[in-house]
Amino acid sequence: MATGSEKFPNMHPVEGFRLGTTSASIKVAGRKDLVLMEIPQGSTAAAVFTQNKFCAAPVIVAKQHLQQAQPSYLLVNTGNANAGTGEQGISDSLSCCQAVANATGTDFHQILPFSTGVIGEPLPVETICAAVPAARDQLSENGWADAAEGILTTDTRAKGASTQFDIQGSTVTISGICKGSGMIKPNMATMLGFVATDASIDEELLHAALRKANGKSFNRITVDGDTSTNDAVVLVATGASGVEIDETNFDQFLTQLTDIFVQLAQSIVRDGEGASKFVTVNVEGADNVQEALSVAYAVAESPLVKTALTASDPNWGRILAAVGRADVNDLDVSKIQILLNSVLIAENGARAVSYTEAQGQQAMQAEDIEITIQLNRGQVCETLWTTDLSYEYVRINAEYRT
Amino acid sequence: MATGSEKFPNMHPVEGFRLGTTSASIKVAGRKDLVLMEIPQGSTAAAVFTQNKFCAAPVIVAKQHLQQAQPSYLLVNTGNANAGTGEQGISDSLSCCQAVANATGTDFHQILPFSTGVIGEPLPVETICAAVPAARDQLSENGWADAAEGILTTDTRAKGASTQFDIQGSTVTISGICKGSGMIKPNMATMLGFVATDASIDEELLHAALRKANGKSFNRITVDGDTSTNDAVVLVATGASGVEIDETNFDQFLTQLTDIFVQLAQSIVRDGEGASKFVTVNVEGADNVQEALSVAYAVAESPLVKTALTASDPNWGRILAAVGRADVNDLDVSKIQILLNSVLIAENGARAVSYTEAQGQQAMQAEDIEITIQLNRGQVCETLWTTDLSYEYVRINAEYRT
Repeated sequence: MATGSEKFPNMHPVEGFRLGTTSASIKVAGRKDLVLMEIPQGSTAAAVFTQNKFCAAPVIVAKQHLQQAQPSYLLVNTGNANAGTGEQGISDSLSCCQAVANATGTDFHQILPFSTGVIGEPLPVETICAAVPAARDQLSENGWADAAEGILTTDTRAKGASTQFDIQGSTVTISGICKGSGMIKPNMATMLGFVATDASIDEELLHAALRKANGKSFNRITVDGDTSTNDAVVLVATGASGVEIDETNFDQFLTQLTDIFVQLAQSIVRDGEGASKFVTVNVEGADNVQEALSVAYAVAESPLVKTALTASDPNWGRILAAVGRADVNDLDVSKIQILLNSVLIAENGARAVSYTEAQGQQAMQAEDIEITIQLNRGQVCETLWTTDLSYEYVRINAEYRT
Repeated sequence: MATGSEKFPNMHPVEGFRLGTTSASIKVAGRKDLVLMEIPQGSTAAAVFTQNKFCAAPVIVAKQHLQQAQPSYLLVNTGNANAGTGEQGISDSLSCCQAVANATGTDFHQILPFSTGVIGEPLPVETICAAVPAARDQLSENGWADAAEGILTTDTRAKGASTQFDIQGSTVTISGICKGSGMIKPNMATMLGFVATDASIDEELLHAALRKANGKSFNRITVDGDTSTNDAVVLVATGASGVEIDETNFDQFLTQLTDIFVQLAQSIVRDGEGASKFVTVNVEGADNVQEALSVAYAVAESPLVKTALTASDPNWGRILAAVGRADVNDLDVSKIQILLNSVLIAENGARAVSYTEAQGQQAMQAEDIEITIQLNRGQVCETLWTTDLSYEYVRINAEYRT
């Protein structure tokens, strides 16, 4: 199950940024599961990774390599996360980097490895290394759609977003792909996301742009509250458009970048494991970001709210109970208003006088549902996106390994 | 579904503490849904209530009444939580107290009201008040089993625990009942629990005993991480045994009391909505209680760990990922050991060398499963109890109101 449109968007190429996809038959014979991405010389790159303390071997290696050299290739395998694999995992990940270095005439420090799939199994290194030259031979500026497919695991559809816009009379392109469907509560990043632009941005500004866009997109989604061991988002700026991003046009660029990030992040939620609803949770009138997020996540991660959503049941008492257990000091429940889409369902600590069950039922029939909680105690607003909790989620995760 | 034995235990009467149960047909015609409990004169009583900020009207009223008078009756209705009902809810709850006062010749401040059931519906006050005399007429020291049935909602079985032991050559009795199956992550209390003893304890010591026993039992269980609006646990000491509890024998009494509390709390988890496994999560070698609980709850509330449990799949990578996202500073993952029952599954940040999938599968077949996480960084241990996440949980909560 999934929500929204299945259509993969038209992807604008980013000059010089090439993607090659092949099948190494890591888990399923013949399935696209190995993706190589080439970063043109002169680009800048920034990345954020999972904050999970059991971070995967490729995350450890990618972080080290980023400090040691300018990256020239990204290698992604699916079917095996190379997480919970200890020292052997690190060594296996380095072997894959070396295979790319051999195939492309670069140094292995210039390769950033990424893995996604089952945790705790040894990485099939030889299988992957043997397939690297085939991925290299596929490298193309038009390789986005194949790559978007090649990085999927339990996802039911490829996820991409692409835009072109003008800065100072020149056209700038941003294109990106991501994957993720379960174990989704990114903390600093998402499962895997790769975004490229032909703008020219120095590393400091690029990091700032990545952090800000990420904070409003991948760090604002949850499917099941479980943070992955392998999350990573990479942002590459090739500079090929000739447009330089500086303090004067940073906000303009950031708005476009954030929009792409939000599209990608939402596409993960729309394809959340077993998702039949796409749910936006808005918290308004909070005193600070922390309490806004505490309320938003309490609602978004409540199994009782999520199962009511599955049933299209306007059981607003569960929303109220979730708000009440959030970590907010001196919350005055009599000031809170709760809306389902545009229907006011609760105020003054009780059901709204104007509310009728028929209104609530109508609102809940939609696939896209917006829950707004007005705390009326400050000026801070936060939004996040989530899914319902369905039989299908349980089935997928009870059967995943078998 | 549920785990463990269905058998309701033999309940020792607590002299003078009488329970009467009747059907007011609040939600289902003819179902036992109204329970009155009489506290004999000269007793002491202590209670803890939910920390949910949207606490229900009866919780607000019961807290006020406890400060204003010695309680003489507890009134419990199921089928309606009287939560999210605003000012009307308070007034409705007071009306029920007045009905008990009229039927028993007491003051309404001496009545503590408790409600459980659906949130946000107006309490059917007249229905409840009309049935109070019938509950009063059933009052009996042998009314425990009927009362245990009369306080249930989505529970599939009645829950009780009872013990007798000697202090200073005299027999002391502790008996208690509780209910709860979903919306279970008590914070200071559980859905509803009522425990009585014939020991004599002053109020200060009684509160201390309640807090300590509660902290190791009802505050250490989670079914779905959702904290109810109506949680309450009441402990009554009648003194009829003639045994006075003081500093010299407090620990002996507390050990027995905690044992009863743990039995009751575990019975809620065993009857957790859709439960097919009973799971004990031990965190050992933590630096402090907070980090131990953070790790334990991260594992116990992970939908991915819980669905693996449903499938009897030893997918230990999900346990490791949950530990890794817990709120622990500077966690050294290389020091962590994870055991499934007595099987060492992970060490040095990876699968244990000695581990075989066959061992894991065998361990996961059992109905009762113990997950032990040894952090090896301090001396603090904490234990909590939870269930798996099954299709049945989703079905129950998607269908609850309809």
